[in-house]
Amino acid sequence: MVEMTVELPSDLGAEKTEALIAAERKYAQELQREGKWRHLWRVTGRFANVSIFDAESHDALHETLTRLPLWPYLKINVTPLSKHPSSID
Amino acid sequence: MVEMTVELPSDLGAEKTEALIAAERKYAQELQREGKWRHLWRVTGRFANVSIFDAESHDALHETLTRLPLWPYLKINVTPLSKHPSSID
Amino acid sequence: MVEMTVELPSDLGAEKTEALIAAERKYAQELQREGKWRHLWRVTGRFANVSIFDAESHDALHETLTRLPLWPYLKINVTPLSKHPSSID
Amino acid sequence: MVEMTVELPSDLGAEKTEALIAAERKYAQELQREGKWRHLWRVTGRFANVSIFDAESHDALHETLTRLPLWPYLKINVTPLSKHPSSID
Amino acid sequence: MVEMTVELPSDLGAEKTEALIAAERKYAQELQREGKWRHLWRVTGRFANVSIFDAESHDALHETLTRLPLWPYLKINVTPLSKHPSSID
Amino acid sequence: MVEMTVELPSDLGAEKTEALIAAERKYAQELQREGKWRHLWRVTGRFANVSIFDAESHDALHETLTRLPLWPYLKINVTPLSKHPSSID
Amino acid sequence: MVEMTVELPSDLGAEKTEALIAAERKYAQELQREGKWRHLWRVTGRFANVSIFDAESHDALHETLTRLPLWPYLKINVTPLSKHPSSID
Amino acid sequence: MVEMTVELPSDLGAEKTEALIAAERKYAQELQREGKWRHLWRVTGRFANVSIFDAESHDALHETLTRLPLWPYLKINVTPLSKHPSSID
Amino acid sequence: MVEMTVELPSDLGAEKTEALIAAERKYAQELQREGKWRHLWRVTGRFANVSIFDAESHDALHETLTRLPLWPYLKINVTPLSKHPSSID
Amino acid sequence: MVEMTVELPSDLGAEKTEALIAAERKYAQELQREGKWRHLWRVTGRFANVSIFDAESHDALHETLTRLPLWPYLKINVTPLSKHPSSID
Repeated sequence: MVEMTVELPSDLGAEKTEALIAAERKYAQELQREGKWRHLWRVTGRFANVSIFDAESHDALHETLTRLPLWPYLKINVTPLSKHPSSID
Repeated sequence: MVEMTVELPSDLGAEKTEALIAAERKYAQELQREGKWRHLWRVTGRFANVSIFDAESHDALHETLTRLPLWPYLKINVTPLSKHPSSID
Repeated sequence: MVEMTVELPSDLGAEKTEALIAAERKYAQELQREGKWRHLWRVTGRFANVSIFDAESHDALHETLTRLPLWPYLKINVTPLSKHPSSID
Repeated sequence: MVEMTVELPSDLGAEKTEALIAAERKYAQELQREGKWRHLWRVTGRFANVSIFDAESHDALHETLTRLPLWPYLKINVTPLSKHPSSID
Repeated sequence: MVEMTVELPSDLGAEKTEALIAAERKYAQELQREGKWRHLWRVTGRFANVSIFDAESHDALHETLTRLPLWPYLKINVTPLSKHPSSID
Repeated sequence: MVEMTVELPSDLGAEKTEALIAAERKYAQELQREGKWRHLWRVTGRFANVSIFDAESHDALHETLTRLPLWPYLKINVTPLSKHPSSID
Repeated sequence: MVEMTVELPSDLGAEKTEALIAAERKYAQELQREGKWRHLWRVTGRFANVSIFDAESHDALHETLTRLPLWPYLKINVTPLSKHPSSID
Repeated sequence: MVEMTVELPSDLGAEKTEALIAAERKYAQELQREGKWRHLWRVTGRFANVSIFDAESHDALHETLTRLPLWPYLKINVTPLSKHPSSID
Repeated sequence: MVEMTVELPSDLGAEKTEALIAAERKYAQELQREGKWRHLWRVTGRFANVSIFDAESHDALHETLTRLPLWPYLKINVTPLSKHPSSID
Repeated sequence: MVEMTVELPSDLGAEKTEALIAAERKYAQELQREGKWRHLWRVTGRFANVSIFDAESHDALHETLTRLPLWPYLKINVTPLSKHPSSID
């Protein structure tokens, strides 16, 4: 599980902000289509998300995250998850 | 998102513990088959899980959680999630 | 329950600040008249409030909150509440 | 705003627990009918509530809270609230 | 009990800072003479104070605090206190 | 400023509890009459107090606190206070 | 990185404690020889360790940890690590 | 710097408690005379101390601490200190 | 015990920074020679120190600390210490 | 164990940032070759690392850390580690 909070600097400007968010969206949807970004939810009331990634390794996950267009403005927390014995997936 | 941590009292006894966990598993799998408990992951290294529920209301979610056999021993934190504009689901 | 803390940047200027707060008030009172923003209290001694919203879904609540004129300057925490069995409402 | 979390000792016994909760409910409903306990909500997923009291003074509020049947088992946090300038109440 | 911590912006300037602190002192002493600001102590080693106010209501306390000249630069925490049964006052 | 929270063990028994609280009250009132325990307030909604002591030294304060009948059950936090330049005392 | 803190119940008894620690040591040394438990350090002044594991997956790591003889008494925190670009390993 | 907080179990008994504290005192004074335990202060209002140790290594410090008679009941935090460039020692 | 962390603004400039640190050092060494600043250690890996002051009163300590050249840039925490019964000093 | 988090000011500029990181890498690799910086891992999803240093003393470690080119922008936490009795190293 990857939890990301976006903290944009106040002097970024509307144009650059929109461009960044558009680029982020495009990259996020590519990763979802490739099956690497399995789930993506908005945290209600916050400029933040909760995500589930499917990565081959921690190295691969780190590389994916650092390529996010919003990477310089993200506070990220990674919680490793495993299969739950009661899960029917 | 529902985060649950199990804290069993040390004097519960092996038999009662096993019975509780078996009942919990059965109920968890029923809720998963009904589509109410959408995802269930183990937090690596902890007797805890991260779950996604699909409930009609907070009342319905609370009722579902209080019926968990392990309810008296669970520390639960609920974080409300919404659809993310970049999600392709 | 939605807890909001306002953190205005120090260089916002008095005029823009007043305009924002006036717009916030107008929108807040509309939502109260529509019954969506059920309760609104000031936290004593802070530029913060405690609110109760009545929303159809987390998606609807998130959309409502992001439309607040002060949204870019709000730290928001949402705690899901349910009916209490001892409540006479 | 009064936030209460119930922490019952594990050796309290089912009978005493039920009696306590019944007494708590009766007293909570009396206070609600008298208009002193204005709102009472369950925190979703927890044995806890969020409440709004209308008390003449901190002394009166403290006396009311210490008379709760569950008082010895409650962790209580009181946050003072005031009228919000945008509230239409 | 009201705990206040002062956080002045680094670009406020010596003159404005002195004027603010002088105005704060004048207002604080007026409130003390009127008996509304009962006690005022400096937290040793910090630009902060611990205060006891005697207010008719939370609304009155909030209005008093927002009129402090340093209000925009104060982090305030209010803890409601009551008469202690062992107090001889 | 001394903040004390009382945490009595659940198996202390009503009689011993009452005796301890009575002894605490007697000692607290003696110290107040001697001018050592200057102020004593109940924290609203908690089995806790906020106190102001006037002690010659940290050694003297520590000795006074360890003689409190409830000492073994107290969680204590001491915050050193000084005279505030705006205080009229 | 896996951080483990041991919290043994006070009524475990010296014999059972020694047996558990001996079993833990044996298992820890096996895992080290197999190259799965790469590093193991004591946190100075605590009954705790900092460890580096080399696991194929989060599932494999979780299974390894739950087989630790001290598992029921361990508070575990897992922080995912990756290769650092400046590392010469 | 080593910060120690003592948490004795409530069922330890007065005799065993006194014996432990006497043994702790004897050992603490030996270490002080040998110059290994450089400073020892009581935290005012708490059953806790702040200490400065002079140890050859972390291994030596850990061994010293585990030999403290109160070791099983101590919560310990070690903060590494160095020579300060402004110190005249 | 006084714990100080230095947080210099990023736009302070190398010259002013050096002047401040030199002034701080001079003042710190004077206070050490006078016996008021008893001990001064660097926290390893941080721009911070742990200090022991010997002051006649909290007022005197506060006055000493506010005269530190770095005072506007210090985060300070004061923990009151007393003589420990096992100390041989 | 040394945990470092990098917090670069937003106005540092790409050129200076790259030069700093290159210098950091060169110095980090020298220290690794000398055996002083034993291990270096990236914290997955963060601009942070977990490191193991082998230093003769806290003074030597502090000197090493303050020479890091990124030192002014590092938040550092040092946790002292010792040999673990179950380690086979």
